[in-house]
Order: sequence, then C-alpha cells, then structure tokens
Amino acid sequence: MDEERVILAHGEGGLATKRLIENIFAKKFSNPILNRFEDSAIIKTDGKKAFTVDAFIVEPIFFPGGDIGKLSVAGTINDLAAMGAKPKYFSASFVIEEGLKISDLEKVADSMAKTLNEVGAEIVAADTKVVPKGHGGGIYITTAAVGDVVINVGIDRIEPGDVVVLSGDIARHGAAILAARENIETDPPLNSDCAQLWGLVEDAITSGAGIHAMRDPTRGGLATVLVEIAEKAGLGIEVDENAIPIKEQVKALCELYGFDPLYMANEGKMVFFVAESDAEKLLNALKNNELGTSAAIIGKVTRGKGVILRTKIGGKRKLIMLEGEQLPRIC
Amino acid sequence: MDEERVILAHGEGGLATKRLIENIFAKKFSNPILNRFEDSAIIKTDGKKAFTVDAFIVEPIFFPGGDIGKLSVAGTINDLAAMGAKPKYFSASFVIEEGLKISDLEKVADSMAKTLNEVGAEIVAADTKVVPKGHGGGIYITTAAVGDVVINVGIDRIEPGDVVVLSGDIARHGAAILAARENIETDPPLNSDCAQLWGLVEDAITSGAGIHAMRDPTRGGLATVLVEIAEKAGLGIEVDENAIPIKEQVKALCELYGFDPLYMANEGKMVFFVAESDAEKLLNALKNNELGTSAAIIGKVTRGKGVILRTKIGGKRKLIMLEGEQLPRIC
Repeated sequence: MDEERVILAHGEGGLATKRLIENIFAKKFSNPILNRFEDSAIIKTDGKKAFTVDAFIVEPIFFPGGDIGKLSVAGTINDLAAMGAKPKYFSASFVIEEGLKISDLEKVADSMAKTLNEVGAEIVAADTKVVPKGHGGGIYITTAAVGDVVINVGIDRIEPGDVVVLSGDIARHGAAILAARENIETDPPLNSDCAQLWGLVEDAITSGAGIHAMRDPTRGGLATVLVEIAEKAGLGIEVDENAIPIKEQVKALCELYGFDPLYMANEGKMVFFVAESDAEKLLNALKNNELGTSAAIIGKVTRGKGVILRTKIGGKRKLIMLEGEQLPRIC
Repeated sequence: MDEERVILAHGEGGLATKRLIENIFAKKFSNPILNRFEDSAIIKTDGKKAFTVDAFIVEPIFFPGGDIGKLSVAGTINDLAAMGAKPKYFSASFVIEEGLKISDLEKVADSMAKTLNEVGAEIVAADTKVVPKGHGGGIYITTAAVGDVVINVGIDRIEPGDVVVLSGDIARHGAAILAARENIETDPPLNSDCAQLWGLVEDAITSGAGIHAMRDPTRGGLATVLVEIAEKAGLGIEVDENAIPIKEQVKALCELYGFDPLYMANEGKMVFFVAESDAEKLLNALKNNELGTSAAIIGKVTRGKGVILRTKIGGKRKLIMLEGEQLPRIC
C-alpha cells in the first residue's frame, strides 16, 4: 500500500488543509495561543501584540493588480488587521530560485516597501536563501509580523443576530491569477483586488461600530471562511447570494472555467461581524473608504448551525468548505 | 547583454549575499532597526523583545545529527540567543512540495516540537503552502520568533583587547551534510552539531562574565562571521588556527573535497566576545555545559583592521568572506 502523501489540496486552505493542521501541527505544537487558530496570535507582553505569519508562493509572481511582493505584505497586514491590530514590525524570508532576474527581485522588494510604507510598518528582520534551478517557483516569500492590538475582536465574540458585512466584490484575486495563467484578456481589464486593508479596518474601528470579529477571505474564498467561522462560533450564518457583490467579468470567467466564485480567493476583502444596531454605521464607514465602496450587508448570524446560502433563484444551499484543489499557488 | 540574475552564491552567506542585501534589501527596507543587521532585531515594546527570522531549505531534510525541523527551530533560537534573548514565541511557515511523505512531515514537526520544548518556547502562528512537484525541495521552513532580551549585547560593544571564545569544534554541520549527500561513512560517525544553544548562552550569562557580543557562525562558517564582525566593529581580530577545535574526520573530509573548514557551516556553535578579565570565567561556564566541553579561547580583538589568522605553520593569513558558492542548501 502506498504511503499517505502531501497532495496539492493540503495547501488549498480547504478541508484537506484543515485535516492536515488538525492531525499534525495542532497536535505537535499544541498550546492555548496556537489552539485558538485565529488569523493572528495574541501574545501578552506588557501591551497586547498580535504576531502572525504567511508564506507566499503565488504563480505568476507578477499579475494584474499586484505582485508577490505587494501580496506578501498586504496579506500579512490583513491578518493582523483581522485581529484588530495595527501592523508594526515585519520579518521577511526569501527563498529564491536560482535564475530569478535581479530586476524582478527589485520590483518585488519595491512593492513590499511601498505597501509597508502605507501603514507605517517596517521589516526589522530578514533572511535570504537560494535554491537550485528547478527547486523553487521563482521566489517564495514568508512574512511574519507583530502589531499593536487596538480593539479586542475574535470569533468567540460573535453573537446570534450579528450582521455579516463584506467590504466589496468577491473572487477577483483568483480570477485575475487564472486570467494571467491562461492569457485571457477581459474587457474591462481584470485586476486582482490585492490590497492592504489596515486603513479600511481603522476606519471601521473609528466609526465606533461594535465590531465583534473580522476575517479576510483568502484561500478557499468567502464560502470556506464563513463555514470555518460558523463552526468555530458554534452558530449558523445565513447569507443572501443576491447581496454578494461580484464583477461581471469575474462571473463570466468563473462560468467559463467552471469555478464557483464563492470559493475563489480574495486578497483585499474583509468580512465583518457586527452588532445589528451598528451595521449601518459600519457600512457607511466602509463605503467612505475607496477600498469599501461596494461594501454590503450579506447576511446574519443565527442560532442555527452551518452556513446557508439563499440563492438567486430563491433556493437554499448549504455551503461547505472548499474540498480538493481549485487553483494551486493562488497566493 | 544578459540581465544580471540571482546565482547560488547569493544564498551562501558570503560576499555575494552581502552585496545582494546591501544593494537591494538594505535600500528598499532601510530603517534604524533593520540597519543594525544583527542576528535579531531589538524592538522596543514595554519590555525589550528580540524578533528574528530564518528560512531553512537544507538538503537532505534528514541528516546525521538532525533534520530540517530541529534545524529550523535551533537556528532561530540561536539567532535570538546571540542577541541575549530568551526564545518565547515562534511562527512557522511551511512550503511543502507535493509528494512529501506525511510520515516525514510528522518527523519534522516532532523535531520542531522537541526543540521548542527544550527552551519552553511555542509556535503561536503558522502557515502551510504546497507547491507542485518539481517546484520545491521537499519542504522549506521559515521560522520567525520573539524573545525576551535578558542581557544587552551587540557588535558595537566589542572593544580592543576583548577575547574571542568559541564554544566548540567547527565545520561539523557542513561536513555532515556533505557526507550525507556523497554517501560517505566516517569512523567514528560524523554528526551535524545542530543544536539549540539557549541553555549554553544562559550559562554564559549567569556566569557573570562581561559578554560584549555573540554570534553563531552558520552559513559562511567561522571565517565569514569573524570578517563581518571585524568590519562592523571597525576593529581587527587575530585568531590562532591551532586553538580552533576541529574533529579529525571533519578535517579529513574537508581535505578530500578541497573545502576549507573555516568556511564550513556550523549549527550548534557560538562565538563570544568578552572582556579579557572575564575570559576564563566564561570558558569555565561553557565547559561545564555539555554543548561547550571543547570551548576554547581562539583569539583577541585588536585596534587593527580585518581578521588575521595565525596559521599552524606560523604564518599569517588574512581571512576574507566566503566568495561564491561552497555547498548549496546547507541550512
């Protein structure tokens, strides 16, 4: 009998990833902080700091709307932001494949620096390794970061009756990567939504709305993230498909390739869980930020279980986590 | 004309790496903390914390004396220890090549957990990505970590007259990797020195010896690290080749392959710079720890410039940084 092996699905952020983490890492590294499995670890020093890490292996490394450099910083900023933390100190490690153009490396580093500058954060530790040609994917980047927690949020704060607010249209990063790989041009052009969301989250926080939890729906898409949250919160979520913003060219591309946009990656979106009485306040704050102009209330939290999508034709569909692989190396 | 490209030497820790860092990362990410280029970044929160990162791409991932899991934690612990910081919170990112055996992943995770337990540190954030077969080297691991600074050390504290103390025999990690790749068996067997050094450094600190600076001589070996330190300190270092411990089978292997052990990687050694009056005190503390039994005074700091090796036959040799590549994917 063949030995069990790592398969691509293990890195897709869906069910296989969850199993791999539960079966191995959660067991090997178990501790109260890790076991929360939030987007950032909250570490108690004298002040509350958030500390998070993400590896980036996106292919191609340059894509419409961004590159692996911008993505590697924005993605980690967003993980901190999701825990209500202002990004501060970054570490970056680079595993570079022999043969990468120096000019490409410079472009990537530029994108990182630019994105860090936007939030006033800094890389304070870094490491570079090079692997022989054929043993890497151009460049892989891992960023870890520490941030100052400015608001206490978490999945355990979500309550029945909470409103689910999405900061904008979905599936754009996944669709942009797909289009880049397949050399498809859309009209209007299709850019990844890749962006750091600290400013948007800061606006949401300063609006005074009672935010209970946030999460950025990256790998596995909006559906996977909602299913994860419902499961961890021990509550139900009802979502209205009609309310979920999606661009026409993204929809068309997904239909062409048979992908469900609910499972396509986003890299510049945040899902908020907020007290119902504060939902409009939050929505207005988001809409006033250029990254939240198409923000929308997409659903609510119930005393039920799992995630129910009310479909466009009026039916109900139970959402599950992404199974197997959809698009490898999406981020 | 061909465009300048990343070459293997850029990842070897020597001159090419230095140039790459100076030309690109130091420019793009410049800030006072990063610009110190110590083994860890000292970040001022309410208490002093050290924060560091390292990527590990060693091949083979299992080698005599360790594996990539042990190495990935020990290496980062040692970077914190070199800055006088007790390891506390770790992040880990895994870039796994499709096809890696689950059992191998478990072994690696076990080694990480074991090494973390030795120092009471924890992984509090992690990320996993999988790359298609042919786009990775089995597994790449990046660890970032935060530690509590318990003693203020740094290259800027090194003074003329300081004594250089090495915690044990050199070149063993590089030689063990070489032997593993070439299927060479030595008698006695040759194990990597791969080990976490926090306990050793703690013993050194509690001895009360006035430690000015520490550094673990990994990629590029003892020679490269000494040259780097001399340059940053703006001082000279004189080293006595006769005083540098090296195992016979390591020496034999280096001679066979034409490698200079001074440039071979170590993964369980520390170089200390200490006030001359405290050198014996430090040496005794190290020798009482099982990882420092062959510790030795190997040289001293002078008002000169660069690193001078007094050779076994009585000559003088000016040491330079590792140039080009020696052994790729050593750590």
